[in-house]
Amino acid sequence: MGNSFGQLFRITTWGESHGGGVGVVIDGCPAGLELDAAHIQEELDRRRPGQSSLTTPRKESDTARILSGVFEGRTLGTPISVCVDNQDARPAAYESTKDVYRPSHADFTYEAKYGIRNWQGGGRASARETVGRVAAGAIARRLLAASGGIEIHAWVSQVAEICAEIDVAAVTRETVEANAVRCPDAAAAAQMMERIEAARRDGDSVGGVVSLVARGVPPGLGEPVFDKLEASLAGAMLSLPAAKGFEIGSGFAGAAMTGSAHNDAFHLEGERVRTRTNRSGGVQGGISNGENIVVRVAFKPTATIAHEQETVDSDGNPRTLEAKGRHDPCVLPRAVPIVEAMASLVLADAFLLQRARHPDQLP
Amino acid sequence: MGNSFGQLFRITTWGESHGGGVGVVIDGCPAGLELDAAHIQEELDRRRPGQSSLTTPRKESDTARILSGVFEGRTLGTPISVCVDNQDARPAAYESTKDVYRPSHADFTYEAKYGIRNWQGGGRASARETVGRVAAGAIARRLLAASGGIEIHAWVSQVAEICAEIDVAAVTRETVEANAVRCPDAAAAAQMMERIEAARRDGDSVGGVVSLVARGVPPGLGEPVFDKLEASLAGAMLSLPAAKGFEIGSGFAGAAMTGSAHNDAFHLEGERVRTRTNRSGGVQGGISNGENIVVRVAFKPTATIAHEQETVDSDGNPRTLEAKGRHDPCVLPRAVPIVEAMASLVLADAFLLQRARHPDQLP
Amino acid sequence: MGNSFGQLFRITTWGESHGGGVGVVIDGCPAGLELDAAHIQEELDRRRPGQSSLTTPRKESDTARILSGVFEGRTLGTPISVCVDNQDARPAAYESTKDVYRPSHADFTYEAKYGIRNWQGGGRASARETVGRVAAGAIARRLLAASGGIEIHAWVSQVAEICAEIDVAAVTRETVEANAVRCPDAAAAAQMMERIEAARRDGDSVGGVVSLVARGVPPGLGEPVFDKLEASLAGAMLSLPAAKGFEIGSGFAGAAMTGSAHNDAFHLEGERVRTRTNRSGGVQGGISNGENIVVRVAFKPTATIAHEQETVDSDGNPRTLEAKGRHDPCVLPRAVPIVEAMASLVLADAFLLQRARHPDQLP
Amino acid sequence: MGNSFGQLFRITTWGESHGGGVGVVIDGCPAGLELDAAHIQEELDRRRPGQSSLTTPRKESDTARILSGVFEGRTLGTPISVCVDNQDARPAAYESTKDVYRPSHADFTYEAKYGIRNWQGGGRASARETVGRVAAGAIARRLLAASGGIEIHAWVSQVAEICAEIDVAAVTRETVEANAVRCPDAAAAAQMMERIEAARRDGDSVGGVVSLVARGVPPGLGEPVFDKLEASLAGAMLSLPAAKGFEIGSGFAGAAMTGSAHNDAFHLEGERVRTRTNRSGGVQGGISNGENIVVRVAFKPTATIAHEQETVDSDGNPRTLEAKGRHDPCVLPRAVPIVEAMASLVLADAFLLQRARHPDQLP
Repeated sequence: MGNSFGQLFRITTWGESHGGGVGVVIDGCPAGLELDAAHIQEELDRRRPGQSSLTTPRKESDTARILSGVFEGRTLGTPISVCVDNQDARPAAYESTKDVYRPSHADFTYEAKYGIRNWQGGGRASARETVGRVAAGAIARRLLAASGGIEIHAWVSQVAEICAEIDVAAVTRETVEANAVRCPDAAAAAQMMERIEAARRDGDSVGGVVSLVARGVPPGLGEPVFDKLEASLAGAMLSLPAAKGFEIGSGFAGAAMTGSAHNDAFHLEGERVRTRTNRSGGVQGGISNGENIVVRVAFKPTATIAHEQETVDSDGNPRTLEAKGRHDPCVLPRAVPIVEAMASLVLADAFLLQRARHPDQLP
Repeated sequence: MGNSFGQLFRITTWGESHGGGVGVVIDGCPAGLELDAAHIQEELDRRRPGQSSLTTPRKESDTARILSGVFEGRTLGTPISVCVDNQDARPAAYESTKDVYRPSHADFTYEAKYGIRNWQGGGRASARETVGRVAAGAIARRLLAASGGIEIHAWVSQVAEICAEIDVAAVTRETVEANAVRCPDAAAAAQMMERIEAARRDGDSVGGVVSLVARGVPPGLGEPVFDKLEASLAGAMLSLPAAKGFEIGSGFAGAAMTGSAHNDAFHLEGERVRTRTNRSGGVQGGISNGENIVVRVAFKPTATIAHEQETVDSDGNPRTLEAKGRHDPCVLPRAVPIVEAMASLVLADAFLLQRARHPDQLP
Repeated sequence: MGNSFGQLFRITTWGESHGGGVGVVIDGCPAGLELDAAHIQEELDRRRPGQSSLTTPRKESDTARILSGVFEGRTLGTPISVCVDNQDARPAAYESTKDVYRPSHADFTYEAKYGIRNWQGGGRASARETVGRVAAGAIARRLLAASGGIEIHAWVSQVAEICAEIDVAAVTRETVEANAVRCPDAAAAAQMMERIEAARRDGDSVGGVVSLVARGVPPGLGEPVFDKLEASLAGAMLSLPAAKGFEIGSGFAGAAMTGSAHNDAFHLEGERVRTRTNRSGGVQGGISNGENIVVRVAFKPTATIAHEQETVDSDGNPRTLEAKGRHDPCVLPRAVPIVEAMASLVLADAFLLQRARHPDQLP
Repeated sequence: MGNSFGQLFRITTWGESHGGGVGVVIDGCPAGLELDAAHIQEELDRRRPGQSSLTTPRKESDTARILSGVFEGRTLGTPISVCVDNQDARPAAYESTKDVYRPSHADFTYEAKYGIRNWQGGGRASARETVGRVAAGAIARRLLAASGGIEIHAWVSQVAEICAEIDVAAVTRETVEANAVRCPDAAAAAQMMERIEAARRDGDSVGGVVSLVARGVPPGLGEPVFDKLEASLAGAMLSLPAAKGFEIGSGFAGAAMTGSAHNDAFHLEGERVRTRTNRSGGVQGGISNGENIVVRVAFKPTATIAHEQETVDSDGNPRTLEAKGRHDPCVLPRAVPIVEAMASLVLADAFLLQRARHPDQLP
């Protein structure tokens, strides 16, 4: 278990980083949605390695093949199977570390859990696993757009200590894609790129934060009490490789505030109930309130670095590791489409759950 | 849906804050566990209102009745139904605000979702809903202790801007319960209590952070990729009323670090593989590594305050609200047992999942 | 696990036959449905013991209390908790057989599974567990009626070797309730009652068959491939105590037929696509086709009999058992509302699942 | 939804009969199980078309490719993705019936549910969908064998009106595979083959019954009350194309019996508690009792026949249909490995569920 996500729009991902390929089965996508491989490819191309100098040089075209569930350009309502072959897997590169636990990687814990280790790369712990999520997210995104005009944008808001200033209401796909680091604040983006290049030169890596806004979400999505929207989003985001933290709305900063400063006053805008501020981040009591949903996800620095590191091997010997392999000095730019995918999946599921029980409450 | 949590140790909570009562059904607790109502009561007493001057004056004994699943002091393996009556519900107190949306409460969103509003208090959005979680968590905690000595402690690490300094290895139930604010740093605790009293005097409220450590967790718990341990914990914590943020290990601070500074080097301690540092927070690749699991949860300030606030009513009229009702000026002290309960539920589930498939990997 | 049923209209039952009570939590019932305790009571009264000379003399009023999820006569969309106290439990009656495995009861298997036995009656294996199902089914039935006029009727179609002749299109609640055996064929009913009374006089018991029709089910319900409507119905029915077989449409008789004799030809009735015959039983490919859904459920004879029986005890000694206790010589009449409840739950779930994804396909 | 089955040993099948292929993702198979493609192929070869003159002439090698989850001949504990290409799909053969509803097929109901019809063959309603089930079942079977010696055999026990006489204790893979109809009673098998050939010559089809025995199942498997072993088995079997009925143990015949004739007396065999008879079919109260699990599944005659049939088209016109296409005059022989697969999946899941909670109760 653990490889499925969602209740009504449910995905199951499969595949190791250095096996035959990676993929996903989407079960529960409504029939009749216009879909072809290009819709999926557009998002996969934003995730794939080698797209800029900031990313790993591993060469994968990440070409999506749709094997089922789509007929004459429309979804059938049956499972959609999407498969991406691994093309540039180089398992031999991992031969020398096959019995060594790489620090802050999952080698030790996978062996502890399963009693067996796929030493050829990160296996399921590799970010390559997210290919299936992005493919499925692309479909969820289309469903959301078709069903009510929900728009989702993520961007890099922090790299190492460099923070961007962003107006969440103004972010667009174009402003995000305007630079390789996917930060709509051009000045910050320039600094971030320098910082990432510096890390690469040092054989080091840096972490950062991805922010996300979902606009046009109707009030009423989210299933109290355990599947509150922020709970589903938090679970979704923390399931991403390297994620260490999650905030919605005011987040940790809100913890330091008083109620009188934090509360979002209601007022009317035409016939619509709006809040003056959005410290709630678009969600109150686990249910969307119609304001922008705003979340932030913290990612640790990439664990693979070229520095010498203390570790042990599976026979219990002290070892010294100096990683070779290919890797990203900073995962943040490629994390952007992945974070968008997870939010799309959460919202598509929440939308279908609300429509199942309270269709009249949807606009 | 949305009122169940867990896969193998699965709970379903029910009950509104001002209805007949609140409760929980626990399905999947193994048979043969020693259990009586006192085990549950001990935790409920830490959660109940009126336990100190820091909390709401609502008077509830919160007496747990076990209606099924236990026979001659041991669990039967069948569903355990626990029921707590509401005793001091005062729905009339909410009469005057029955059509007013209280700012940063869930009145508006519940009505938007369901098309109907239980105006007598917070309904399912009330913290009273967590009674069932704490009762179930008490059982999960016993299972974890019986199955392998896992110990779980939470404490208040921040109130408003006041932060405590705590050694996570040294926290015990006694140090947590040593003061009403449940902060083991006595000096910080004194300041926190003053800060909460000040908020009460001002008719205001304050937020804060609860930290948690799980000690003695064996390596191997957690189900990649969507049910990684940190994903389950994040989802669990963000399902709590007023929760706005979650971190594991280095959290948001880790986002500003380099890989060389962040990585946790492995070494041997006797035959055991340990890490020199614990920025991973006890989890790597979604699976426990045997180190302390350390998480932090941010809570916003209580939405109920005595200040005048701008709002609207359900007929679309501007209104001014000055809350009366009973409430906590700060939810943090009472959140401690609730956060512990959620962590216990997550770990009990993860433990059973691991035992199902890889029993030989458990100690 | 195992005590929950359904995906979107999801119930969790709890309670042992001789503990504090029995009950159910219904999660996922849409908000706004008119509901009060009388709706539930009406169905419970058809299930309760002591209602006629054909049933066990155990005296239980089976009074339902709704503890949550309903406000001012309408459902809130939150969990509905229903509780029924046990009043006439006589655990002492089981004292003498506490270590004896009663033949064709679940004493041995519960002990084998759980390592512990609640010897006070049948525990969860008792038909008393079905109280929660019937209470939940009453709500599902109201939802189906409100959402599209679906009507569900079950009746006793066979007792021992006596078979009734019934026109499934003509069955009504009145014809079912016209006699104590709940068989709308009055002549057969009279024979069945005699047969049951004869079994009682002999200290013996008899089995039989319950048939069910669901009328007004719109085309399109059912979720291929594993949650086909007949699969969900079969699983639901075989989860009932004493159930041994399930058929839909032609059932086992269909196995002996040729395709040319079995196929249901399509024709038009006004604008509606109809079938000339209904050997499919209202379901094709796992999806309702708009015809009557017709199923049959076989129940074995009650295991509790007054004859002397060979058995063993938990210490491995041969024993001879002569049951005392109270019991039904034939469960069939009381099984009728239970079978209806299960069908209602299956269809309510299927309805919500279809509305989630393909609302425009519903009438 | 609807395309996943199982809780801990969970499979998701995908694929249409005339699309790119069919496949399955298995999530939850324990790590360390020896597995290669040949183990899967052996079972697929028993299911594939064209294996004898009794089956459809469609030519599919049904070669299984394992794309993930297996490394160096052992399972990794991660999802196992198995893919089978469609090779001999001839969608053009369906062009002439693309708007005609074939009687007792799922054309009408799929269109009613999804609002779209994949007219190229049966789509998900085709028996081709069961490829994924058989592949997954082959792995479940290995897990059961490795974990405790559970053996599962199915066979054809009835074709049209011809019934076989079989000793369930003596059935082996060899006796089942001894003839093309997969009936271990050679005399009956010969008659069945003649009957099937006669149906083919007539352009007609016949139904029948598959029986199954699971031997060596330890006491304690099955999760009351909704996931009782017989409930899971019934749901599994009725999810198969063309299945119309299910029985366990005495089944419908038991409905005509008295309790004194039906009850299975307990006795001791060495230290083991056994029953003298097995009308319970190896399950009591939803839990295995250690005796042979015996079930029967009724299949209707193949809906595709060469006779002229009355029907309508999607524009509401009366039409006459004379099927061409390729098909099996009797699905029974190929249903045998499919029924075995479903039973294997149910038991693997039940085994893991029991080990999760009550490992000490397993032998």
